[in-house]
Formats: sequence, C-alpha cells, structure tokens
Amino acid sequence: MALLFYLKDETMSKDKTWSGRFNEPVSELVKKYTGSIDFDKRLAEWDIQGSLAHAQMLVQSGVLSEEDLAAIRQGMAEIIAEIKDGTISWSLDLEDVHMNIERRLTEKIGDAGKRLHTGRSRNDQVATDIRLWLRDQITVIQDLIRSLQTALVDLAEQNAETVMPGFTHLQVAQPVSFGHHMLAYVEMLGRDFERMTDCRKRVNRMPLGAAALAGTTYPIQREITAELLGFEQICQNSLDAVSDRDFAVEFTAAASLIMVHLSRLSEELILWMSPRFGFIDIADRFCTGSSIMPQKKNPDVPELVRGKSGRVIGHLIGLITLMKSQPLAYNKDNQEDKEPLFDTADTLIDTLRIYADMMRGVTVKPDNMRAAVMQGFATATDLADYLVKKGMPFRDSHEVVAQAVRHADQAGVDLSELPIEVLQGFSKLISDDVYGVLTPEGSLNARNHLGGTAPEQVRFQVKRWRKLLA
Amino acid sequence: MALLFYLKDETMSKDKTWSGRFNEPVSELVKKYTGSIDFDKRLAEWDIQGSLAHAQMLVQSGVLSEEDLAAIRQGMAEIIAEIKDGTISWSLDLEDVHMNIERRLTEKIGDAGKRLHTGRSRNDQVATDIRLWLRDQITVIQDLIRSLQTALVDLAEQNAETVMPGFTHLQVAQPVSFGHHMLAYVEMLGRDFERMTDCRKRVNRMPLGAAALAGTTYPIQREITAELLGFEQICQNSLDAVSDRDFAVEFTAAASLIMVHLSRLSEELILWMSPRFGFIDIADRFCTGSSIMPQKKNPDVPELVRGKSGRVIGHLIGLITLMKSQPLAYNKDNQEDKEPLFDTADTLIDTLRIYADMMRGVTVKPDNMRAAVMQGFATATDLADYLVKKGMPFRDSHEVVAQAVRHADQAGVDLSELPIEVLQGFSKLISDDVYGVLTPEGSLNARNHLGGTAPEQVRFQVKRWRKLLA
Amino acid sequence: MALLFYLKDETMSKDKTWSGRFNEPVSELVKKYTGSIDFDKRLAEWDIQGSLAHAQMLVQSGVLSEEDLAAIRQGMAEIIAEIKDGTISWSLDLEDVHMNIERRLTEKIGDAGKRLHTGRSRNDQVATDIRLWLRDQITVIQDLIRSLQTALVDLAEQNAETVMPGFTHLQVAQPVSFGHHMLAYVEMLGRDFERMTDCRKRVNRMPLGAAALAGTTYPIQREITAELLGFEQICQNSLDAVSDRDFAVEFTAAASLIMVHLSRLSEELILWMSPRFGFIDIADRFCTGSSIMPQKKNPDVPELVRGKSGRVIGHLIGLITLMKSQPLAYNKDNQEDKEPLFDTADTLIDTLRIYADMMRGVTVKPDNMRAAVMQGFATATDLADYLVKKGMPFRDSHEVVAQAVRHADQAGVDLSELPIEVLQGFSKLISDDVYGVLTPEGSLNARNHLGGTAPEQVRFQVKRWRKLLA
Amino acid sequence: MALLFYLKDETMSKDKTWSGRFNEPVSELVKKYTGSIDFDKRLAEWDIQGSLAHAQMLVQSGVLSEEDLAAIRQGMAEIIAEIKDGTISWSLDLEDVHMNIERRLTEKIGDAGKRLHTGRSRNDQVATDIRLWLRDQITVIQDLIRSLQTALVDLAEQNAETVMPGFTHLQVAQPVSFGHHMLAYVEMLGRDFERMTDCRKRVNRMPLGAAALAGTTYPIQREITAELLGFEQICQNSLDAVSDRDFAVEFTAAASLIMVHLSRLSEELILWMSPRFGFIDIADRFCTGSSIMPQKKNPDVPELVRGKSGRVIGHLIGLITLMKSQPLAYNKDNQEDKEPLFDTADTLIDTLRIYADMMRGVTVKPDNMRAAVMQGFATATDLADYLVKKGMPFRDSHEVVAQAVRHADQAGVDLSELPIEVLQGFSKLISDDVYGVLTPEGSLNARNHLGGTAPEQVRFQVKRWRKLLA
Repeated sequence: MALLFYLKDETMSKDKTWSGRFNEPVSELVKKYTGSIDFDKRLAEWDIQGSLAHAQMLVQSGVLSEEDLAAIRQGMAEIIAEIKDGTISWSLDLEDVHMNIERRLTEKIGDAGKRLHTGRSRNDQVATDIRLWLRDQITVIQDLIRSLQTALVDLAEQNAETVMPGFTHLQVAQPVSFGHHMLAYVEMLGRDFERMTDCRKRVNRMPLGAAALAGTTYPIQREITAELLGFEQICQNSLDAVSDRDFAVEFTAAASLIMVHLSRLSEELILWMSPRFGFIDIADRFCTGSSIMPQKKNPDVPELVRGKSGRVIGHLIGLITLMKSQPLAYNKDNQEDKEPLFDTADTLIDTLRIYADMMRGVTVKPDNMRAAVMQGFATATDLADYLVKKGMPFRDSHEVVAQAVRHADQAGVDLSELPIEVLQGFSKLISDDVYGVLTPEGSLNARNHLGGTAPEQVRFQVKRWRKLLA
Repeated sequence: MALLFYLKDETMSKDKTWSGRFNEPVSELVKKYTGSIDFDKRLAEWDIQGSLAHAQMLVQSGVLSEEDLAAIRQGMAEIIAEIKDGTISWSLDLEDVHMNIERRLTEKIGDAGKRLHTGRSRNDQVATDIRLWLRDQITVIQDLIRSLQTALVDLAEQNAETVMPGFTHLQVAQPVSFGHHMLAYVEMLGRDFERMTDCRKRVNRMPLGAAALAGTTYPIQREITAELLGFEQICQNSLDAVSDRDFAVEFTAAASLIMVHLSRLSEELILWMSPRFGFIDIADRFCTGSSIMPQKKNPDVPELVRGKSGRVIGHLIGLITLMKSQPLAYNKDNQEDKEPLFDTADTLIDTLRIYADMMRGVTVKPDNMRAAVMQGFATATDLADYLVKKGMPFRDSHEVVAQAVRHADQAGVDLSELPIEVLQGFSKLISDDVYGVLTPEGSLNARNHLGGTAPEQVRFQVKRWRKLLA
Repeated sequence: MALLFYLKDETMSKDKTWSGRFNEPVSELVKKYTGSIDFDKRLAEWDIQGSLAHAQMLVQSGVLSEEDLAAIRQGMAEIIAEIKDGTISWSLDLEDVHMNIERRLTEKIGDAGKRLHTGRSRNDQVATDIRLWLRDQITVIQDLIRSLQTALVDLAEQNAETVMPGFTHLQVAQPVSFGHHMLAYVEMLGRDFERMTDCRKRVNRMPLGAAALAGTTYPIQREITAELLGFEQICQNSLDAVSDRDFAVEFTAAASLIMVHLSRLSEELILWMSPRFGFIDIADRFCTGSSIMPQKKNPDVPELVRGKSGRVIGHLIGLITLMKSQPLAYNKDNQEDKEPLFDTADTLIDTLRIYADMMRGVTVKPDNMRAAVMQGFATATDLADYLVKKGMPFRDSHEVVAQAVRHADQAGVDLSELPIEVLQGFSKLISDDVYGVLTPEGSLNARNHLGGTAPEQVRFQVKRWRKLLA
Repeated sequence: MALLFYLKDETMSKDKTWSGRFNEPVSELVKKYTGSIDFDKRLAEWDIQGSLAHAQMLVQSGVLSEEDLAAIRQGMAEIIAEIKDGTISWSLDLEDVHMNIERRLTEKIGDAGKRLHTGRSRNDQVATDIRLWLRDQITVIQDLIRSLQTALVDLAEQNAETVMPGFTHLQVAQPVSFGHHMLAYVEMLGRDFERMTDCRKRVNRMPLGAAALAGTTYPIQREITAELLGFEQICQNSLDAVSDRDFAVEFTAAASLIMVHLSRLSEELILWMSPRFGFIDIADRFCTGSSIMPQKKNPDVPELVRGKSGRVIGHLIGLITLMKSQPLAYNKDNQEDKEPLFDTADTLIDTLRIYADMMRGVTVKPDNMRAAVMQGFATATDLADYLVKKGMPFRDSHEVVAQAVRHADQAGVDLSELPIEVLQGFSKLISDDVYGVLTPEGSLNARNHLGGTAPEQVRFQVKRWRKLLA
C-alpha cells in the first residue's frame, strides 16, 4: 500500500495556520527581504520537471498512488499553460517558486498536490532546480560559442593572407596574418567550450533525495529519479548535496574567462576602429552616432562587452564570498546564489549572441593594415635572420640591420623600399633575393610550422576547426 | 538675445531621421543590449531636477528665454505627475531616461523642450543625475545608520551590567558586558557614518557644464547651476567630469564595510541563537519555522544579511574592474556603473532598515550568558592579577592559578565556587576579598578605564553616544 | 649542416653593449620595478628542463650541432648543481631567471650557450616554464588532496555510528552521523580533485615554438619538444600561445574552491572546539595557549586557514583583472601573473599538508555530541513520520508532535525520555516501538538510502572511497 | 608604589616552560604556518616606538618604576642599533616581532623587560603597531602624490596650447588641450590625496589599552600614551579596538583607486606611444628594447603599472573577505591582514615614485597630435555652433555640416582646408571668420569657461594647483 500522506520537512513561512510556535506573523519588510519569488519564478519550468520525476519515482517506490500521479501530471500541465500564457499570479506571501507552484497545484487537485512533497524538502528541491536550469543554460552557451567560433573561422579563412602588424607591448613587432589573429580567439573559445563541458559534468549530479539534510525515512529510489531527469550521477552525501554550490562558482568562473576573452577582443576591435588604426569597420547596426558630430560612429557593443566583463567578475566574487566559511548544512545565505548566477548566464548568453552577429558584420581594411606594417620596420627581424643564414654572426647582423633601419627611418621609407645598392652598402652578403624576405608576405610565409602565422598554417587550422565545429 | 536653438552634442541612436551617416538601423538585439531605460528610469526625478536648474542658468546667461523656461517648468511638472501616477510610458527605442524625458517634454511644449539641451550633453547630464541621486541615498543611509546605532545603544544601556563571555578564537577569554559588546558595533557604524560623510563631499561636485568632454561654446555659468542644485563644488576639469566614477567606487567600498560589519554582527546573532549558545532570542517576525520540526526557528534575516554582504562586495569588484585602464574620456563601458550602484544602495538601505527593527526585537538571556561565563574559567586572569597585586611574582601566580583551575575543573565547578579554605590551600595570600575578584561582576568592574568593559564605562559611552546621536 | 648562429628574438634590457638605439641606461628604480629575478628564480629547474628539450629538438631539426648539445647538457648540469648547493648568484641586472641562466651557461660553455636560444623567445619560454612548474604543483596538490581525504575517511569509518546534531541555519535539525558529516568534505575534495585533473589538461599544452608572437623562421619540430617534455598537446596558435594565461586563472579558481571548502570545515572545527559546543578537541600541536589564561587553547590553524582563503580569492581577482581587456599578444602586464600564482600554490600546498595532519589529531567527544542532539528535539520529525506511517494524516501528526514537544520542553526532557503513557496521551497510535524511532540512533538508521546518514550508508561510502583512493 | 610585576595576558606558543597545559610542542610545520616573524619584522621600529610610550605611561601611572623605564630605553636603543646594522637575529620559535623584541630586551635588561608588557596584550599591541606604520606610509604616499601632481602640472603648463584630439569611445570627438588632458589626472590624484587624508583620520586612533579584548585591571591612562604617540583619538571600545581592521580595508580601497587612475593614464601612455598614435615618447630609461628588433622600444613601466593595479585590487578583496563574518573579538584570521597591506603600500609607493619620474621624461609630439585632430573632423561641432549663432536652426545647420564633412572627406582634407567659396556653397551665412572657428585652436579657445579646455582655463587651473601644491 502506498504511503498516502503529505510530508513537508523543511522551513516555511510561519503565517500558516498550522504553525502554533510563533507569536506574530513575519513583517512585510521581512517578507520582501527574505522572499525570492521575484527572481526564482524563472525556475518554474525546471521545478515542475523535477516534481514530475519525483512523483513517478514515488509511485514506483510504492509511496504514491497512480491516481495521485495522474492528477499531479494533469495539474502541472495546466500550470505550465498558465505560466506560458502569463495568467499565473505569483504571490510574495508564498515566498518562493516552489511554494507557489505547490499551492497552485493543491488548489487544482487537492491533497494529491500535498503528497507530492513526500520524501523531499525545499533544500534538495531548490538545489535540483538550479542544476536542471543551469544544465540547459550551458547547452545554449555551448551552441553560441560554436556559432561565434564559426564566425571567426569564416573571417580567418577570408583573411588568411591579410597582413597586419603583430603587436607586443602595442608596438609593432612582426607581421601576422589577420586570419591567424582571429584564430587566436577561436583557440580561447575552444578552451571555454571545454571548461563548460567539464563544469557540466559537475552540474549534472542529482541532489534530490537528500531531503532537508540527512535523507528521508521514505523508501526512495534515487536512481529512478536520476534517470528520468537525465542526471549522470547522484550526489553521494546528503549534507553535501544540500549545501554544495561549487557548480555555481565553477560556472561563473568559466563564464568570467569567456567574458575576459571577449573583453580582450573588444579592446582590439575598439582600437582597430579608432581612426588612428583604421584596421576595421563594424557594421552600422552595432554602433551609435552623434546628433552633432557627423564623423562619429561609436563601437558601443564592444565597449559594453568590456564593461560587462566587470559585472560577471563581480558575480564570481559575490558567489565565492557567499560560500566562504558557512558551516554545514543549508543556511539561508545560499538564497543569495540565484541572482548573480541568473545574471551571469543572461549576460553571457546575450553577449555571445550579439558577438557572433557583430563579427559577421566586421569589414576588414587590408590596405590600412598593410600600411601600418610598412611603418614599423616589422621585418627587421627577417633581415637579421637572412644575414645569419647567409653566414654572418648574429651580433654583426643585428648591427647591420640597426644601421639599415636608421637609414630607412631617416629616408622615411620601409626597409623593403631601399634599393639593392643601398642595402648592399650595409653588407655584401645581401643580394636580390632579400626582397622576398623583406616584404610582409615573405615574413608571413617564413613562419610556416605548426602554430605559426604562415597563410598555409592558417588554412590548416581553418580546416581543423571546420571539422571540430561540424 | 537668447540663443534659441537646440543643440544636442552627444551620441544618439541612429534610427533618427536626421542621421544620414548610417546605412541600417540598430538591430533589436543591440537595442536591448545597449539600452538602459529599464534600469535608469529610476533617475527620472533627479534628471528633471538637473534640467530645471540648467534651464534657469541658461536664462540667467542669456541663452534661453523666460518663456521657454516657463514652458519647460510646466512640462516637467506634468511629467513628474505622470511618473508619480504611473501613466508615463518608457520606450526602449529612446534608449535611456534622458531621451525619454526630453521626447515627452517636446511632445508637450514643442521646440522649447529641444532647447533645454543647449550647452550640455548626455555625458555630463548622466553624471550629474547619478550624483544627485546618490547624494540623496547617502542621506537616507546616514539616517538609517543613526537609527540602528540608537537601537544598539538602547540595548547597551539595558545591558550595561549583563555579563557574557568575551571570546577570542571563539574560546572563552574574559567576562565582558553585553552592553559593551553592543557598543563595539556602535563604534563600527560610527566610522561607517564618517566614511559616508567623507564620500558625500566627493559625490557632491557638479560635472554639469563639461558637455561631451571639452566644455561648450555657450556662455554658461556653472556657479549658478551648482548653487541651484546644492552642489558644494564644481568639477574643475571637463574630461575628468565626464569620465570620473570614483565616487561610485568609493561609495560601494564604504557600503561593503557596512555590510561586513553587519555580517559580523549577523554571525554572532546566529551563533547566539543556536541552542548551543542560547544567549539571545530574535523576535518571531524576523524568523521562519519549519512545517515539520516544531523546535525549529531559523534566523533567516541575519543569515541573508551575511549572504548579501557577498553581493555588495561583488558589486565593488565589478565597478573597480569596470574603470581599470579605460582611456579618457567617456566610454560606453561606464553605462555598466548603474546597476551595481543601484543594487548596492537598495541592498544597504533595506538591510539597515530591517536590522534596526530586528535589534529592537532581540531578547537577551542573561542567565545563559552568565552560565557560559561560569563554564570557561573566565576569571582565571583576574585571580592571577589578584595574586600579583598581593605581591606574588607573576610566574608563581600563574602556576598557582593553573593548579586551582585544574582542581576546579576536576570538581566540575568554577573558581568562584571553591571554598576559601580550598583556595588558601593554593596560596596563603588569598583571603575573603578574592570572591569580589572571582565573580564575573568583579572582573567587569575591574576594567574601569576609557574603553574598558566596566559597566561604569559602558554607561559613559552610552551617554556619549546619546549626545552624538541627538 | 646546423645553423650555428645565435638568435635572440625578444626584448632585453638595453644596457647591453649591442643596443645602440637607446640614449641612456635603465634607471636603478626601473630595474627594480621591472625585474623579476627575485621571484622567478624558483622556475630555474623547469627553465632548464625546457631548454634541454629545446636543444635536443634543434639538433634533430638540424639547427644545432651535437657538440653544442653536449656542451649545453654539461653546462646545465653544472648550473643545477650550483642552484642545489646555493652557490649560484642571481643578478638583477640580468632581469629574470632566463637571462641569468643563459648568461651563466655562456660563461661556462661560450657561444654554444648563445645558440641555445635559436628559434624561441622569452615570450614562449616563460609561458613554457610556468606550465611545466604548475603541472608539477598540481601533482603535489592532488597527492595532498588524496591524503586529506584518507584522513577524513578514517575519521568517518571510526565514527559511522557517532550521533551528532545535524544543523540547518545553525539550529538543530535532525541527527546525523559524524562519519557522514566528514564524508561531506570527502565529496567536496573529490570534486576539487576532478577540477585539478580538468585544469591540468589545459595546463599541459606547449607554447614553445610560438617565439615572440608569430612563430619562427627556423625549421622547428614542435612535436619533438612536446614529447620530450611530456606535453599532451601543442598550442595551435602562436599569438594565443604567448598571451594565454587562462590556465593560471583556472588553477587559482580551483584553488579558491579548495580553500573555501577548508574554510567551511575550519569554521566547523572552530565552532566544535568552542566550549559552547565541545564536540571535538584538536591536538595540542596545532593550537596555542595563553600565558595567563590556563583555560585557553586556541585553534590557530583552522582560523588561519579561514583567513588564508581570502588571500587566495584575492589572487584570483588579481589574475582575472590582470587579463581583462589586454590586446594581443604579449604585454608586460603578464609579468604580474607569477607572484599571485606562486603564492596560491604555496598557500594551498601548505594548507593541505597541515590539514591532513590536523584531522588525524582530532579527538571526537561523542558524549557531548549526543547530549546536544538530546537538547534540540532533533527527532521530532521522526515522531511525525511514525504517526503518518501508522495512518494519521500529516497535519494531525504535526499537531500531536508539537504538543508533545511543548510538554517535553516544559518538563526539561527529550521526547525519548517521556514515558509511554505520557506519549500515548497525545495519540493512541503510539506504542512501545516508538522509542526505536525517537532515539537518535533510530533516526539515523531510518535514513538508509543512497546518500542518507544511516551508518550502513556511511560504511558503504567509506568502502567506495577506499577503492577510489587506493 | 609601582606595581612591579610582569603580566602577559595574551596567547603564546606553548613550548614555553611555564605552560603545563599542553602535552606536546607545536610541530615545525605548524610553527612555520602560524609564525609571522618573516613578514612582521618590518614593524620593529613602530613596535619599539609604541613600547617606549607605553612604558612612560606606566611610570606616570605608578605601575612601573623610573629605573625600569631607564633600562627599557637603554635596551631598546641597543636593539634599534642592532636592527639598523643587521646584527639582530629573528627567531621563528618566538613567532612574531613582538615576542622577538621582548625576548631580546629581557636578555639585555632582565626582569624590567618583562614588566614592559604590564597592562597590554599582543592583541592591542599589534593593532597599534600597524596603525603607527600605516600612518607613516600615508605620509610618504601623500608626498609622492604631490610630486606626481607637480610633474603633471608642469606638463600641463608647457602644453596649455598643445592641441590633441579629445576622444570618446576612442573615436575623435573634439579638440582638447594636452595640458587640459594632463590636468584631468591632477584632479583624480587630488581626490586620491583627499581620500588618504580622510583615511588617515581613522588610522590615527589608538587601540593600545584594550589589552586582550576587555581592557586591563591596571590603572592605565590612555590619554598619555595617545599624546606621546601622536594619536588624534583613542579607540573607545576595547572589543572594537582589537578586532577592527576597517582602516586596512579603507586604505587598500583608496590605494586601489590610485592604481586605477594610474592604470588609466598608463593605458593612454601605451596608446600614445604606439606608432599608430605617435603622440608622445617616453624616455629610454623607462623602456626596454629588443635584442633583435631595432625598431622596438617597449613602454614596460606603464604596462607593469596597469598589471599591478590588478594586484592591489586583489589585496582589497583578500582583506574584505578576511573580515567578513568573523565574530568578535580577536581571531587568528586577522594575522592575514599584514601581507596584503604591506604589499599594497609597497606597490603604491614604488609606482608613484617611478611615475613622477617617468612623466618628467615624457616628450610631447605636438605635430602628430595636431595631424590626428585634422584627420577626424574634430571641429564639425564648432561649424554647427557657428551656423546656429548666425541664426540657422540647429537641424539645418547639422545637415549643412554633414554635407560639408562628406565633401571634405571625399576631397581628403579637413573642413578648415576647404576654400571659402566651397564652404559658402553650403551656406551663405558662412564668411571669412569661419576659419577662426574651424581651426583646432579656435575650437579650443571657444570652450572658455570654468573647467573648459581653453588654454586660458588651463593656465588658470595650473595657477590654482600651484597654490594648492605649494
């Protein structure tokens, strides 16, 4: 025979009739301060998902009747409809999404609604909801990472041979392929994808069954619920299950790194769109102008992304600080995990979505990039390499190049623009083949090994990523 | 003659008819990503305040006509009414609160509404709005600090003679007065109040007149606007005026310290309300119970306060990170200053309000406190002091006390419960007057110097604070 | 034929004779400000490891001669000996560990030492060194995690049946097994171990071969070096290779979580050792006393651990902030990655080591734990469950229990101490078998499902962990 | 009669002979983990300063004899000499700087050394030492701020009329004076100076006399010690006195803002020194070159400053996190306050020192700045203003300017380079006086109000700052 009785084994607000322990109701201010319905109602879909699986498990375990399950399913279907068409009303008096749904269910189906809570507690219920929700967010995020990577790989493919100055210390260092530069971000996002995969493993573990903190006296079968909900593992310790928020911290740390990567790319887009650089243009739909300065076109989106990275980093600190030195098991502090976590996922998803779009709207200006390469003696290293390979000791070659640079600098031309006779004036080892080395293209092509900037390598990496992204 | 023409010298979204520079409208996604009306509409009241002062200055400077000013005042009065009764509608297409209000004004009063913007820009306008708003929040916060301090001073006065164990390392150290303990937090909040006063000085400086970044070509008189708006100082450099967000960081740092103090007090309240301590009880209206465990009464409010301290600390980091390494002058990154700042002020105000209330609902349990003092040999130091003052070298006195403690420990009693003959067995220097020293009350009274825990000192501090709080 | 010439393709301090570009030497203050030898000398061992593999690859690639390699190996062996016996002297003039070692090598073996640097740069060299070093630290950390887990599993096994109050909100909730409580931390550390494994994958990728930023013109074979150095993967993009510090952030985030876990355990140890709890004792060698208060024994180590968690969290923020919005590729900012990373690893290693030791020195006081359970009506839930299972509706059973608790509270006894007649006065459904339910032991045993607190489950988990830790 | 006996009322390591309570000595690992002598020895000078004042007060209060005082002064003078010539040896066995000095003093002068500690504790002693030390650091920091401001004011004065493009969103907005730009940072540093002054007030309060946590039974007179040590106020509550670390957090927050300001200036210096900008040159002694790329000159110092801002921000978080939710009074966690605080002060002092130097080594390149202004149609706003003032409605003027800009853009010239006939083709209102408006100089001069960029205003601000800095 099924155990037909309702058991609610967790904290509740005490204005309920059944609570004789308290002498006064919670004040309005306290209700607002401690209530979470304003922000946790977004968990409704996942809360119901968890409840349905729990109910089915209770039936298989003989704790709930088939009739109750049918009623619960029917009631929940109606509630989902109410949520979708916006007719449900959320009540602060009922504190949180779990109580609101349970109350609504009970209004619809009576006592069967109350029996749903048998063998669980809000402590394990809320932990389950967040994990189910976060698991879905990660799926969305990973899709968006892939989409952004694809946009970057497209740009890389189109610009395998586009020469730009490679900077270190924001000083011109050596020529690089713009496609190669784009692929650097594809690599970063590749690691971000991996981290999300790793994090997902630890998100995808089921706390349900831990009840308030110690487990329950009902004969629950957690393997059943876990399978129904698609959890890969079951939390093996009830105290840990209700108090663990590692997954939230780990997710936010991984999200922070994504935002840092996009903040770095944003910094570059902003630089490159500045008239001082003029390397790229961003499509108008991502920019704003000025009502008075017709020359103005501001890269608002990358600037905001740079700014929003601070926001996510702030949430990371908020979450870590929250957990630091809480004793076991559940403390109310944990309610503060939700808003930073929600805002992190929202910010990240919006940012990734807009970024992929925006990168598809980037126009490359190869002439300006090439002109910038020609201004910085970017191939001085290549000339030194050339002389070394012709047999000159490095120290001497460096001195020869220094003199040649000084001469070219005074003449206001690039090394590659010096006539052969002039170059030979610096060293007799120099012959006509030097120009193949002195051009940015020659410099690019010479760095032709795994990970190097040669267009051939860029195309190799494009192919590799196409396969990975397929 | 007044300059009658409208001048808007800052960035605007480009779907406006006058913008021929752009080939395509901002996408919906971008509009949502870059728009701020959802959160900056709360600045409306201060935005209007700033606009009215600006308009009056323009009249006094001969840039705007009296008629325009009258129309602007009338229009703004209507808008305020619409805001109050909730009939105004905010449009995301108009991006932010400034454009929404300006558009509404122009709908009402025509071109005079457009002329309002002469000689300013959204860059200095938004900076002015935030400062006006924050100045008002600080006033509220300082009132609430005073109110909380008063609640604590009340408790201190009632409990000047209530003995509790003073802890170091959470081990019983020496007896202290519970009133003295409460006054420690009054001191912390006193510093918090000072910090808010200091911060307010730097908030209360006027950026208005800096225009977009370089000032304006109109003959503005910033002293007039500053006086009208009650600003103590005028920002002396236009580039700094539009890019400075120090005041937001400084405020959030000061807010973080308040939250840290309340988090520390919360930690203690939670400990003290645990049955293991049982030192206090918190009124029912600040707690929640459990539907199943009748013994449960959870200190939700202090737990949430402890949790919310992480939230504010997170905002501090978000804001600092935001500013780090931005070049001058205004960058869109700065738009991200508002949400953390708003949430910091809201959290702080709610927390201070609820805390003052809650402290007034604390019931002290002196018997449990005293029992805890008696269990920890808290007056061992006093016995050593006693012997030293009777002429025994310290090393010997320490050894004597150690033996006495060991004896009392085995007997399961406190030092003060040992009969005089037993005590004299440890040292002949001990006489009947020792009991005055061994009682918690004797120990308290002996620490009777400025800042000490003696009830006399507690009452002195209560009087001092009453005067400061008056 | 091998390319015999020395090529150094990265920034160097310019007081070197070969640098004709600069008009003045670096000032002493600047030298101190920009030099890193004081802290990066600890990388020496890994720097040499990387250099030896690089040299061998150069030989296999025909860039270096066998004689040079032999000389380099000989020279490096001597340098290692000098480091070990402390006779090497580090020079600030040579800026960092790489230049110091190269200079020393050249002093020993002449030009062959200079040729070692062919085809690499300090940018890829330093990135390689840190990764090699960090990989080794992770190995140590994972061993120490295992060791701490073993200490906790030992405690769990010995205390599978030790009853203590399980707390939520620091209020007594339900009885739990102390062994179960210890296993909660074993679970946390298990996730920490996993995170280190995941992080290690991303640490263990080779940047060497990226040279300054774009790769090199020498025919290097990165697969050879990677295999020699035990790298699992090769960084596929040279720009990313020299600018990526994700692995440092990810490691520090994982380290922060470990510290948070230990901070939580520390919070509990401090509570439990407080006389108000008296649940455990920590061995004297981990505590300090007081010269005057013979009753004092302070849990310094857990307090410091709690404090040091803030330190590591600070480093995490420092590192993330460092990377935020840096343009590619290498910027000097990155030099600031080392100190927080070093200190994080040191702090974590010291803490884990001392913690395992300390946990082996914990004495459990079961009597005090049990007494605390008996004071909090911890089995009220069980009585309600009992009645429900006997057929009473939950609402009624809750009311019955509430009355019984009130009665017991007034009588100053636990529910289990009420005579059967008294209990039956509350409900006729109660019979003698109720005492099995009301005892803490009965309560424990009833939560006998996967993850529950029943001693049987605890022993199951102990066995599971023994296998995993083997 | 003086109380002649030694009283040490704080925790000590227990390997001392007098401690019979402990069964085993502290392990070596624990000694290292908990010891602080390695980093707190730098407090020695301030520790002695505090001790001498304490001793003198004890004499005036009749607790210590004149002879003892004389001996203490003599002994301390010798110890200071030993510290200065480096002959003192610090022992980890003695844990911290306080015990090391006391032990050395006792070795020198016997029991008088032990009596020094009467009426105080390490808890109030260490709090006093840090405050004395920090007070001195703030003095140094404020001097350095003044020095850096002076260097910037010098640059501003020399460049009042130097035109550069003012940027918003890193897009050319309007012309500004380079002197004006420098003064923006003078303003920021002015606020930083104020914050240090405000912080100093709260640092400069004396905890001494709070003893372990509750005050002391000796008749101390804290006013005397406070006056001797130059403290402005006395901490009014002993519990607060030993547990307060607000001042450390507040100082680090103020330091973080200074670092953020310098990080912003660094970002600009790095941009300006990039060949894409070419606005300035930084003296060679602050840069490093490359052994192979003769064109390379890297702005290492500003890059490191940008990086080090993350370090200080990390310390801020470390310190706040440390304090969050510690119960009163002293906990060992607090020992972790020192290293981040020390490193913050060191980093800040080194950075300010090097920065003032570096700014004096900046060479301005006015031609490049002016050329950049001419490329961005920076005076488009001024042309619109000009037409508005001649009577044209703003909307029309904006359209006229837009057309003129388009024409100039196609012609590849600036607006000011269009012949008068061409300009009049856009509007008949334009006459020869337009060129005064179209030049960058005209644009600058037109913004001639308080805070505007006009050279006259720049000179006014220079004069104002000269007075403030005098």
